[in-house]
Amino acid sequence: MPKIIVEVMPKADLLDPAGKAVANSLQRKGHEAIANVRIGKRIELHYDSTPTEADIAAARAIAADFLSNGVIEDVIDVRVEN
Amino acid sequence: MPKIIVEVMPKADLLDPAGKAVANSLQRKGHEAIANVRIGKRIELHYDSTPTEADIAAARAIAADFLSNGVIEDVIDVRVEN
Repeated sequence: MPKIIVEVMPKADLLDPAGKAVANSLQRKGHEAIANVRIGKRIELHYDSTPTEADIAAARAIAADFLSNGVIEDVIDVRVEN
Repeated sequence: MPKIIVEVMPKADLLDPAGKAVANSLQRKGHEAIANVRIGKRIELHYDSTPTEADIAAARAIAADFLSNGVIEDVIDVRVEN
């Protein structure tokens, strides 16, 4: 099924408490190479047929307006995957 | 900063109520082309230097054992991003 993948991450200059907790836990378990962890969202929009240019433009607007909170998150990627 | 990206999605045969709610809402707003929505996680592991093969193997184990719940989620990708 054709998809548009939207990736949303917490803004780089904001704390990500869940990510920090995971990083601390991994370091305690001996994974010292992992300096930090950030947890974001990966959202799949499924289409019955290959998305048109209009669908992709609409998906970009949906990603910015609806799937992310621009105060605390960045949309880092919107891509088609068939 | 070098990263390993881990992508985790709800298993295909499980309901994803949050994704379903987003899909219904988008369809009500006129986006009929979007047949379904699935919401998963995108986790970045940050490293101070380029991850070694051992780091990547460790990240795969972390993704399976710690960052995902194998009962309801699949790890769909573990990749290095510099």
